Amino acid sequence: MAGVLDHLRVVLVAARNPLNIGAAARAMSNFGVMRLRVVNPYEVAFQEARSAVGAAGLLAKAEQFETVAEAIADCRLVVGTTAAGPRDLQHRLLRLEEGARAIKRQLKTGPVALLFGSERYGLSNDEMSHCHWAMRIPTREEHGSMNLGQAVAVCLYELIRGRKTAAAKAAPGQKEKAAAKSADVERLTQLLFEVLSTSEYIQPQAVAGEEKLRRLVRRLKLNANDAVVLTGMMRQIAWKMGPGQ
Amino acid sequence: MAGVLDHLRVVLVAARNPLNIGAAARAMSNFGVMRLRVVNPYEVAFQEARSAVGAAGLLAKAEQFETVAEAIADCRLVVGTTAAGPRDLQHRLLRLEEGARAIKRQLKTGPVALLFGSERYGLSNDEMSHCHWAMRIPTREEHGSMNLGQAVAVCLYELIRGRKTAAAKAAPGQKEKAAAKSADVERLTQLLFEVLSTSEYIQPQAVAGEEKLRRLVRRLKLNANDAVVLTGMMRQIAWKMGPGQ
Repeated sequence: MAGVLDHLRVVLVAARNPLNIGAAARAMSNFGVMRLRVVNPYEVAFQEARSAVGAAGLLAKAEQFETVAEAIADCRLVVGTTAAGPRDLQHRLLRLEEGARAIKRQLKTGPVALLFGSERYGLSNDEMSHCHWAMRIPTREEHGSMNLGQAVAVCLYELIRGRKTAAAKAAPGQKEKAAAKSADVERLTQLLFEVLSTSEYIQPQAVAGEEKLRRLVRRLKLNANDAVVLTGMMRQIAWKMGPGQ
Repeated sequence: MAGVLDHLRVVLVAARNPLNIGAAARAMSNFGVMRLRVVNPYEVAFQEARSAVGAAGLLAKAEQFETVAEAIADCRLVVGTTAAGPRDLQHRLLRLEEGARAIKRQLKTGPVALLFGSERYGLSNDEMSHCHWAMRIPTREEHGSMNLGQAVAVCLYELIRGRKTAAAKAAPGQKEKAAAKSADVERLTQLLFEVLSTSEYIQPQAVAGEEKLRRLVRRLKLNANDAVVLTGMMRQIAWKMGPGQ
């Protein structure tokens, strides 16, 4: 997938806020999408953004273009992002999940551009006209417009989601711990029963109490290690309390 | 789902940057998650953040707490977020997709807290010890740490993604027993700690011991009723043992 992501170009069109440009770059770096293109950014903002946490290398290599047409010239699929609903748009509008599937298919064969508009206006009709279709993050209608850096993060997450990364795999030794053996659970139950009898929480002769306690301890679904630890605790408490009256 | 999302509390622990608090609030509003809690924020930052675009109402209603324990007291599942790999963590670590599934199940039955740590350090071991398990966004190993506002956006997106399609209703009579509230689990932890101190199983000053104990009790995944019963037992034992030496 790393090779495939190499085909993705994130294109920020007319971004105005250096923090947003920096945040977009950081999210790209987080998700391993390293090719940033900026179209007609506010120059000062772009220079300031170059200090984004952990994404300096990516920003230094960002390519700058005067027009959307130039920025997407080598791409075989161009996708716009929007907070608008389908009624306000002349483009085919896909939900992010659907759109991401189509993008991933295309990435296998060649470069894809994913466009994000300016913070205030999004993509203009002219800018959007370069896109094959548009994609929308499923935000709620009452507050649809996302922060630029967050929109980039969510779109890229959807694109990389489901990839197997080394870090997400369980480390050896982090496997589900083996469940405690019944004998150990029973030993714990007996100790707890003893302590509860000594402390007069239950009557020593109460069979029903013992069964109830056993069911309770079973419900804890202890792993082997925790059963040993808890048994040690109970043993110490029992010893400290001394024999019952 | 709107009703279900009403059960979700986003908890920002020790956030320092007003822009990040504002961005987190904005993403919450975008995705219809309206309950923000902040623990021990940098006060100035929190006041400044209240101007976040389109999320002023949400921020005005944000609840402020002194400690993680108070912020999660009414929650039945507490999930931490981390950029760390499984090897650096004592908690069970789920990939975001997996974790979100578990959270969605729990949201049907009661309040869930999703914790985000400070920008610089993430969640501390002590803060993490209040969590049942941890969740990780699948960022690449070389640059794992995400911007706070972007991490919130991605996690919430994963939670609302596919909402329309998955109208999963709980089968009647198939309800799981409600999990214990965090406040009740914490009370049990404190009582057990007290009893173990009195019995000289652990040193009263051992902070690491308390964290370890908290993690152990969390692993038991107590239901509400069992937590009450066990607390009653511990109370009786504590009473019987009398004050420590």
